[in-house]
Amino acid sequence: MGLQRGVCVIGAGMTRFHHKIHKDKSGRELFVEAALEAMESVDKGIERKDIQALFVGYFTPSLYEHQGHIGPLVTDWMGLTPITGWRTETACASSIAAFMTGVLAIASGWYDVVMVGGVEKMTALPTEGVTDALSVAADDDYEIPAGATFPGLYALLAQAYFKKYNMTWEDLQAIPIKNHHNGALNPKAQFQEEIMDIAKRIGQREGVTFKDPLDFLKSKYNRVIAWPLRLFDCCPISDGAAVAILAAEDVAKKFTDTPIRVAGIGFGTDTLALHDRISLTSFASAVFASRQAYKMAGIEPKDVDVVEVHDCFSIAEVIATEDLGLFERGEGLKAAVEGRTALDGDRPVNPSGGLKCKGHPVGATGAAMIHELWKQLRGEAGKRQIPDAEIGLAHNVGGTGASCGVVILRR
Amino acid sequence: MGLQRGVCVIGAGMTRFHHKIHKDKSGRELFVEAALEAMESVDKGIERKDIQALFVGYFTPSLYEHQGHIGPLVTDWMGLTPITGWRTETACASSIAAFMTGVLAIASGWYDVVMVGGVEKMTALPTEGVTDALSVAADDDYEIPAGATFPGLYALLAQAYFKKYNMTWEDLQAIPIKNHHNGALNPKAQFQEEIMDIAKRIGQREGVTFKDPLDFLKSKYNRVIAWPLRLFDCCPISDGAAVAILAAEDVAKKFTDTPIRVAGIGFGTDTLALHDRISLTSFASAVFASRQAYKMAGIEPKDVDVVEVHDCFSIAEVIATEDLGLFERGEGLKAAVEGRTALDGDRPVNPSGGLKCKGHPVGATGAAMIHELWKQLRGEAGKRQIPDAEIGLAHNVGGTGASCGVVILRR
Repeated sequence: MGLQRGVCVIGAGMTRFHHKIHKDKSGRELFVEAALEAMESVDKGIERKDIQALFVGYFTPSLYEHQGHIGPLVTDWMGLTPITGWRTETACASSIAAFMTGVLAIASGWYDVVMVGGVEKMTALPTEGVTDALSVAADDDYEIPAGATFPGLYALLAQAYFKKYNMTWEDLQAIPIKNHHNGALNPKAQFQEEIMDIAKRIGQREGVTFKDPLDFLKSKYNRVIAWPLRLFDCCPISDGAAVAILAAEDVAKKFTDTPIRVAGIGFGTDTLALHDRISLTSFASAVFASRQAYKMAGIEPKDVDVVEVHDCFSIAEVIATEDLGLFERGEGLKAAVEGRTALDGDRPVNPSGGLKCKGHPVGATGAAMIHELWKQLRGEAGKRQIPDAEIGLAHNVGGTGASCGVVILRR
Repeated sequence: MGLQRGVCVIGAGMTRFHHKIHKDKSGRELFVEAALEAMESVDKGIERKDIQALFVGYFTPSLYEHQGHIGPLVTDWMGLTPITGWRTETACASSIAAFMTGVLAIASGWYDVVMVGGVEKMTALPTEGVTDALSVAADDDYEIPAGATFPGLYALLAQAYFKKYNMTWEDLQAIPIKNHHNGALNPKAQFQEEIMDIAKRIGQREGVTFKDPLDFLKSKYNRVIAWPLRLFDCCPISDGAAVAILAAEDVAKKFTDTPIRVAGIGFGTDTLALHDRISLTSFASAVFASRQAYKMAGIEPKDVDVVEVHDCFSIAEVIATEDLGLFERGEGLKAAVEGRTALDGDRPVNPSGGLKCKGHPVGATGAAMIHELWKQLRGEAGKRQIPDAEIGLAHNVGGTGASCGVVILRR
């Protein structure tokens, strides 16, 4: 069913995502940094008194910062109390749920202007603590006791895809190579370096020469994490926050002459545990969410100009592009190998560099996708701009697809 | 602003809240138990296929059950995938936020029928672990390092109230005495025993005679927890779940001839840390939330027939009744002492027995308040029924009032 009232994005901001530079900042401080940038991005200006509610995604604050109650924590730190605010959680899709809560708060008529966003302060724990914190997105009764970790679970998906469609790990490297190219053009990205530049840097240090990116990716410097996935198939551990400001269509013109409309939303769920799934090469949650969003927007997959998908692992981007209907089943990886998902391809995917290069502070990722689409649809994405992008889609997955939110924005 | 579309409660269910009987059940199992009861409560029947989304409150699952991603966890366990669903968190008010998300999902036009609820599996940890888990509702950077725990923080509020209004701990005992009376009439309550019956039971065991409830409450058997609060001033640790089913007003008649309308909602925030507050005898979040809800409902405090408030500690009930405008400032405790908040008083408060006797599985509490109001407004509350109750109000607080949600229901 359609929404009763139009909703627009009128501003967006984000911290740079990074594993080092934010070490001294807490989650609340990161959120405020992104929120202030979002407020500054509003063309005609916005004041605190204009903001009527604040919804925030943060996956596991009680494990990272021994802190819950994140809703009032950030309304307070933003100087916005006593306005409405609470936290949404659905693992790695936590901030797309915050975004949707904001959309509903406006579409329902409750509020006119709402701030939404997400944050995760992952470096507060050592790497093994992060792996443990992430594991609560899987099924702790039935999956984790079997020794599963997320790299291991996504490795199973990669194996299933390779076998079903007769593709290889070498083919899969098209994803990180492309995303490193895009990330190198994104000043907010955690890694802003082409893979070949990384190969040259490491080669110089080690006295080795790599003849091309794949030569480097096949070397011992790209170590196996969970077979067949290697280090460059995995997104990094990151700190960061991203925020968007939403307004009812009928009040948006007060804030900007170029609001970006929320054309469609969709959100689906699936079993937490992979072993309960019918398919290991598709996420039913993503299929459900995207069909719902396309229907609300009144468009088809071919109408989308720019797509940000949840590439927590390289194989996830491939599954995403097929679940979204951008490519036929079994054609997603071929399309990436052929360059069709590159910035200058006919179906550009992850111009931001994706989770792989932009980084993946879990609770902030959905909001960061919105930030990228907002930049792209306003023609402000600099060297990674998709020319004349009018329709953008964000695809934000929780866990191994137990939840997925899809948002379609339109210029 | 008003909502664009009317929303009704068409069903409600809850597990008994308890500290022992659910030991072998996980959070997901408790949720399903309450959800199935809610489905069975729908007068004309409801099927799984009718339910289009599920929003769930659970405060700290990652600490209690090493489990996150609770949204899809419960849609899966209810056999409802791939429908929309995520978790809301705002400490002890987590499930009132889930309720409001459901209201917005319907009022916005997104969905027609939505399940909402909450759960907390607290006995998964020993008592010191529970105290630690609860502490993440306070400010971990500024409050917890000073040694604060929730009993201690509420004890400060009690001291401030006693001093400001010249009242005593003995006066305050009107709250637990009343709530134990009500709880004894509630088959879902954790404690179903009058305080005098408890006093007789303990007196027999110990060879002591107590002449009245206060005589017992002043004895060593009611030990000090955080001065001046004693054991019977504090709600217990509980396992439990509660669920409500919402439907758009225009489809509700398909499910029941006596839908209970959502007349108003409000949600406010405040600083996490008590030391940042202007007042220690009022929660600004609750004042904001209740005024917002009254305005949406088009009513005044005097119009409310039955009230469920967040009495996590006895003093909290007093502050709540004043914040809601049921009594003037400084008059709330006097009113309780005079019996005005008793079942047969002019302003009945917590007919369910409140958090003190019904129990307080944190994430389930807001939804359990909705369950009680639904029973009361349909005239199905048995021996604790408020005669001819037409308007009910739920007041659900997070932490020491850093968040508060208020819902007004109308027959």
